[in-house]
Amino acid sequence: MTIRAPVIGWQLPPFYCPIEPAIHPNVSQLEQRAIAWLDRANIFRDETERAWSIATHSTDFSCRMIPWGDEEPLLLFILWNHWAFALDDHWHDTGSAAVRASVIVDLNARISRCLEAPGSAMLGSDPFAAALEDLVARTRAIATAAQLHRVAEGLRDWLLGAAWQVSNVERGIMPTLSDYVAMRPSINGTRFSLAWSQLANRIELPAEEEYSVPVQALTDAAGFIVSCDNDLFSYAKEDDHETLDQNIINLLAHHNNCSPRQALADALAVRDRTMTLFLRLREQVARKASPDVGRYLDALGHYIAGCIRWMNAAPRYASPRNRYALPVPGATWNVTFSDAPADPRSDPLPVPAAAWWWEQLDR
Amino acid sequence: MTIRAPVIGWQLPPFYCPIEPAIHPNVSQLEQRAIAWLDRANIFRDETERAWSIATHSTDFSCRMIPWGDEEPLLLFILWNHWAFALDDHWHDTGSAAVRASVIVDLNARISRCLEAPGSAMLGSDPFAAALEDLVARTRAIATAAQLHRVAEGLRDWLLGAAWQVSNVERGIMPTLSDYVAMRPSINGTRFSLAWSQLANRIELPAEEEYSVPVQALTDAAGFIVSCDNDLFSYAKEDDHETLDQNIINLLAHHNNCSPRQALADALAVRDRTMTLFLRLREQVARKASPDVGRYLDALGHYIAGCIRWMNAAPRYASPRNRYALPVPGATWNVTFSDAPADPRSDPLPVPAAAWWWEQLDR
Repeated sequence: MTIRAPVIGWQLPPFYCPIEPAIHPNVSQLEQRAIAWLDRANIFRDETERAWSIATHSTDFSCRMIPWGDEEPLLLFILWNHWAFALDDHWHDTGSAAVRASVIVDLNARISRCLEAPGSAMLGSDPFAAALEDLVARTRAIATAAQLHRVAEGLRDWLLGAAWQVSNVERGIMPTLSDYVAMRPSINGTRFSLAWSQLANRIELPAEEEYSVPVQALTDAAGFIVSCDNDLFSYAKEDDHETLDQNIINLLAHHNNCSPRQALADALAVRDRTMTLFLRLREQVARKASPDVGRYLDALGHYIAGCIRWMNAAPRYASPRNRYALPVPGATWNVTFSDAPADPRSDPLPVPAAAWWWEQLDR
Repeated sequence: MTIRAPVIGWQLPPFYCPIEPAIHPNVSQLEQRAIAWLDRANIFRDETERAWSIATHSTDFSCRMIPWGDEEPLLLFILWNHWAFALDDHWHDTGSAAVRASVIVDLNARISRCLEAPGSAMLGSDPFAAALEDLVARTRAIATAAQLHRVAEGLRDWLLGAAWQVSNVERGIMPTLSDYVAMRPSINGTRFSLAWSQLANRIELPAEEEYSVPVQALTDAAGFIVSCDNDLFSYAKEDDHETLDQNIINLLAHHNNCSPRQALADALAVRDRTMTLFLRLREQVARKASPDVGRYLDALGHYIAGCIRWMNAAPRYASPRNRYALPVPGATWNVTFSDAPADPRSDPLPVPAAAWWWEQLDR
């Protein structure tokens, strides 16, 4: 049987990511514990759904993002990721033309408040809601007030981003690059994931450091890089959506009136120029950083480097469901790496929403 | 000419609010400066729109909410309120059956990111967008990183709440009381307003105190009380909406299948029992509070006590636009106050989303 190739082909361009990867040593035991939770939670209607949830490799993702983290919060982050992928696949990112933003806003507001208003039961009582309640109870049990707040704000940011994506689908709108740059880190749950990274790594940043403009620029830039990479790995998985998937390739092809392959090259330039900015700004901030800020900067690096390795070998991406009835064990994109950016320019991208990232560089 | 009375009449029940009110001494000069900004911003298409913006009494609201605050941030909060009322009246709270959540989510995501991604110009360049950009620039200029973050998170919380309200209108849904309790403080912009109160009062709470569960319960309860009061003062103003307005009177009438007058009595009981809880929990937290937490608890009191006085005499509420072509100078509801709650019970409301407020009380 020949598997239909995506229009950008099966060979992704080399990834420019000069950041050392790492993975938590207990990945196998953590995955077993996560699967045991999934089976208890009973949120899948059949074995096929269960197999595709395991194929998200949520444990691998989490263990690469947080390689030195405490095990219990790391496990909890893994469980949240399984739950969030199920939410995405069933509600947020279906590409269905029938999806309504009004339904998603209601769902997302309920999820957000489940975490903040304990006992509100805003999502009802089916197994999916009960699984969220379990995650909420466990999260509230292990997090300090400040950590819980960070997770809750990250969750709300993600949910507003996801609702924005659905609102574009409903209105038949392909975002501009600038709007996409501004919103894509939210859609990717950047702050939510980093809240867990901070929690599991016991990184306690004073607010004035965490929310300083250069650190926020680094957070957004990292989230955007991971998002671009996710768009590449997800391209095949979403190329049969009822509506054209909102990803950086399709939006550049749409707005520049070019082929997907040309758009891929253009996307790579945008992504690699952002990586150049990220590395340079990270080095600059690191020079004056407190130890905890330094560890946060490391965490951003693990986020970027880890996600490439994770998506490369996750059957969710490497044996996409629109082409395979079941996940293929050992499936991989066999990605390669590059020592240099595809586009070597270091000046700011001509994208209004990204300009402030470069403005943080010392002259 | 006889002005049509709302079905709950023109005489609101006495307000139970044993909290000393106060008002900033420079209210008159601040209002002049705010109106000068409005005229420069040029966001109103005619004199009538301008008059109704002034009739919001945004200065009076802000000066009662923050009676001891620094003047420059207080002015900025006033300007934000003028802008936010315009947003509400034109987009969020029109009651139009044609409103689409997808449009509002897009608008709200753009507003949220305008503040966080400087220069992104996510809202375009018309006078309304330019006014927001001006507010953003001024806010970023005076706020510390931590203060800016608090304002931005408060803004996002409000915008997600506003989108939820619109999603209910679109789907023809009248929320249950519990869902309303969980979401109404967000719709009211509670955290956004309190972020400004903290900023203008120079209240710097350590995250562990600010986000402790009892302090969060007090914040939500205060926001809910203010929201109930707003529902009463707004009832007449919104009783000709194309869709039945989502307020505590209409939702109790709907779900309890009773008259609006009976629902008003039931709403008052819910509101006064929450006030009893608020006063008791506030006193409990105050006993062990640091000086800054003590000042935050005072700020919550000014929020509640100030809003009643403000809405009582604001032409926006006292000479509602669906009955008066222009605001009536000196219009007032002539409210009265009560020394005791309409419902004296101190046990928890039988409302899942509110139960955690009472759970914070020492036994």
